[in-house]
Amino acid sequence: MIGAEVVVRTLDRCGVDVCFANPGTSEMHVLSALDSAPDMRPVLVLQENVATGAADGFARIAGRPAATLLHLGPGLANGLSNLHNASRALSPVVNIVGDHATGHRRLDAPLTSDIRSLSETVSVSTRCAMPGRGIGAETAAVVSDSLGPVPGVATMLLPADAAWQEAADDIGSLPVSRAEAPEVDHGRIAQALRQPGAVLMLGHDAVRGEPLRIAGRIAAATGAALMAQTTTPVTDRGAGRVALERLPFNPDQARQRLAGAPVVVLAGARAPVAFFAYPGTPGRLTAPDTTVIELCPPEVTASDPLSALAEACGATEDPVVQPPRLPDLRGGALDAAKVGAVLARHLPEGAIVVDEAMTNGVPIAAATAAAAPHRWCQNMGGSIGYGAPLAIGCAAADPTVPVVALIGDGSAMYTIQALWTQARENQNVTTIILANRSYRILQAEVAKMDPTQRSNAMDDMLRIDAPVLDFVAMAQGMGVAADRVSTAEELDRVLRDAFVQPGPRLIEVSL
Amino acid sequence: MIGAEVVVRTLDRCGVDVCFANPGTSEMHVLSALDSAPDMRPVLVLQENVATGAADGFARIAGRPAATLLHLGPGLANGLSNLHNASRALSPVVNIVGDHATGHRRLDAPLTSDIRSLSETVSVSTRCAMPGRGIGAETAAVVSDSLGPVPGVATMLLPADAAWQEAADDIGSLPVSRAEAPEVDHGRIAQALRQPGAVLMLGHDAVRGEPLRIAGRIAAATGAALMAQTTTPVTDRGAGRVALERLPFNPDQARQRLAGAPVVVLAGARAPVAFFAYPGTPGRLTAPDTTVIELCPPEVTASDPLSALAEACGATEDPVVQPPRLPDLRGGALDAAKVGAVLARHLPEGAIVVDEAMTNGVPIAAATAAAAPHRWCQNMGGSIGYGAPLAIGCAAADPTVPVVALIGDGSAMYTIQALWTQARENQNVTTIILANRSYRILQAEVAKMDPTQRSNAMDDMLRIDAPVLDFVAMAQGMGVAADRVSTAEELDRVLRDAFVQPGPRLIEVSL
Repeated sequence: MIGAEVVVRTLDRCGVDVCFANPGTSEMHVLSALDSAPDMRPVLVLQENVATGAADGFARIAGRPAATLLHLGPGLANGLSNLHNASRALSPVVNIVGDHATGHRRLDAPLTSDIRSLSETVSVSTRCAMPGRGIGAETAAVVSDSLGPVPGVATMLLPADAAWQEAADDIGSLPVSRAEAPEVDHGRIAQALRQPGAVLMLGHDAVRGEPLRIAGRIAAATGAALMAQTTTPVTDRGAGRVALERLPFNPDQARQRLAGAPVVVLAGARAPVAFFAYPGTPGRLTAPDTTVIELCPPEVTASDPLSALAEACGATEDPVVQPPRLPDLRGGALDAAKVGAVLARHLPEGAIVVDEAMTNGVPIAAATAAAAPHRWCQNMGGSIGYGAPLAIGCAAADPTVPVVALIGDGSAMYTIQALWTQARENQNVTTIILANRSYRILQAEVAKMDPTQRSNAMDDMLRIDAPVLDFVAMAQGMGVAADRVSTAEELDRVLRDAFVQPGPRLIEVSL
Repeated sequence: MIGAEVVVRTLDRCGVDVCFANPGTSEMHVLSALDSAPDMRPVLVLQENVATGAADGFARIAGRPAATLLHLGPGLANGLSNLHNASRALSPVVNIVGDHATGHRRLDAPLTSDIRSLSETVSVSTRCAMPGRGIGAETAAVVSDSLGPVPGVATMLLPADAAWQEAADDIGSLPVSRAEAPEVDHGRIAQALRQPGAVLMLGHDAVRGEPLRIAGRIAAATGAALMAQTTTPVTDRGAGRVALERLPFNPDQARQRLAGAPVVVLAGARAPVAFFAYPGTPGRLTAPDTTVIELCPPEVTASDPLSALAEACGATEDPVVQPPRLPDLRGGALDAAKVGAVLARHLPEGAIVVDEAMTNGVPIAAATAAAAPHRWCQNMGGSIGYGAPLAIGCAAADPTVPVVALIGDGSAMYTIQALWTQARENQNVTTIILANRSYRILQAEVAKMDPTQRSNAMDDMLRIDAPVLDFVAMAQGMGVAADRVSTAEELDRVLRDAFVQPGPRLIEVSL
């Protein structure tokens, strides 16, 4: 059996059975081996950042890693920014990068580059298979690395000769060690949460299922405000779920919200810091006299620490949950709130929403807060262009529900190639493009600048209106049915249809 | 004056007056400062690999660097693969990457990453400006670094606070040191070239203008075969130019071509190696008993070394040049040779051709070898997705002539966003998409594989025909006029029109 087949069979045996691939010459033997494991499902993408973003989405919804298959250093480079996002989401990803044959590297052929250094910027581990030696063990170790102690991107460099030479098929899955919650004084934290203005801030695992319900009980028992950090990989929300306030992205608003908090207790969340620095303002969003206590870090399972805290709080009552409520549907020209209202009416139970709506995200999230129960995904690393790829991975992980991708027009253009894979796989992904013809989030940054430091050049560089981007044409060009809407009535009609028809759809919303 | 303005003014003073930008929050002050230097021209792109590929193209045609403006580590990551290509082309690029403010980095905000490690994989130098201290000097040094001793990508990390704080505007351009040709025995090389089967292999500077003419004289005087390495950044070719045989990309063909050569003399070329390794075949393309002599390495100016060699050869006669000759125009369904024949008829003098036609490139190059004199650009690093971005940079550097980008359909999808910038800038770029609905170059690799190692999965993953990519729709969606043609007559008509009308055009050729 050749090494490539050992890799594929080992992946399959370790529970990795989806591979998002954009291969090249050095990956031909792996590509060929992809049907040597009966469960392995290869998914072709047209650019590598689509593969890596899809692997992030798959991991978030399936709770287990998918593999990627990338071509040498430049292929990895093209996929790095969504690996950065995946790494920040603590999404397990088995990142396989083909390399030149071991003897070919020293010839410095055109595609040679320092793959290891690239990998190490995003990976929890970077391993390299060697021809004929322990390839199964190395592959199993990569899967295990991706899952813990801190889940993330685990990378394997696979030289072409390691793939094409004979190798022993000798390994199954390896044990996974997960990071454990540190010991904390639950009684002290319970007491702290009873102070007026106290905040229990949740992230990662703590905004899902049972941990979220426990957190809701703690909030009810202590009177603490229940808050999610600014972005979380997947949040369970909607009717019947514990309602969560979210820390604003805008650092002034965030700082103001947290100003009076005597304590912020972190459960799966990180101590809140601003995305960016601004002249003369602190980067930390908590006030200097606020005590920040970590109940459990993002990488651990939050249910045990939260249960222990709930016990210390005497929180035995059921949590307060969001009653079903749909916003009024106002007709006419669309804005973000109306998009949210229409979406709330049609969102089916269990649906997955991928939020890359940027400036429009907050009103849409508000409008859908009490819609049918659904899952909401956000960008964890801040690198734009994650939405359409993530939707591919989400749909691959759960084909039974609609996936809705809310994407700003500027954001959509980073990875617009993703639409083709949605069509090729006939995925139930509905992409809603929020077309304001600008980098609106940067225009908001301009407003924060010293007026003497603004310029016409800047204004011009933040508009993407000339020529106008026609997303309907682009989507149709990639085999995705598409519509343009400008009123709530039109969106209502098209969205209802999109959720009924199988396959992908794109809706360009003119704002 | 704030640091951002010092950066922009220093760039301008050092002759860098074009900036390909996809900025974010940390670059707002630089963006704003772009109109503080009267000559500085910002060019907006929708994805970073378009910016970096454009900077490569600009450098190749203008002979001087453009700047990029990228957003943090993920922005750099998105642009890395075309920086890899630029680095292999020895194209000077001033690569400016915004970073978090110095105090913000330690907070590990979502977009924080190891920018320096990313940069060092492609850069000749990586500098970091510090707030208020020597920003002008640092900027001038980056420009100087990009130009020599070995030209390439020089990167400056610019923390946001270095951009927004006051700084002294105190520096003009710095001297540039260029690598010098090593001392060689010209008499010995002259003698070696007189052996039957000897090859003079040219690359980089040696396939341009006067150096190419001198090389032609040497070939005529010695009887050596004149050959270009497989890819060169810009080749001067067409009627009236010295004709060049090109070393084949296919390693078997290349090895066969060089098999009988007693000597290969390199002028601006690198010792030929295969792009990829294959089981049981050597990576070096010269035979073991072939002597390889370097006259001058790629990074030096080739005219002096070639002149000295010409003198040693007694090569005083004018070189043999390509007489004008147009291939017969055959009508009907198109293939690569017919595309080349039509192109040859219409290519205006001085035109720039960007070749990312992959499997179709060789017949098109053959058909245009004796067309009106033109410049031909190739991919130096092998990372796909360079064609459309490079065309932007070429057109920015020389708006007076048409730029023709020959791009395979698979290749085009890596950086399809580039079309929008061509429209925004109203560039005279004609993109010819060679649509064979597959990764044909990888299908050719399949043919080289052991038949027992091929699979259905592989065949399926090398087809991009379902759904069919409609490049006409995609181009129109980005504001580029577009046509689909399937016969030589149609291409003839559309191409003639494309070269007359200003602005960009896309032609999808169904093969």
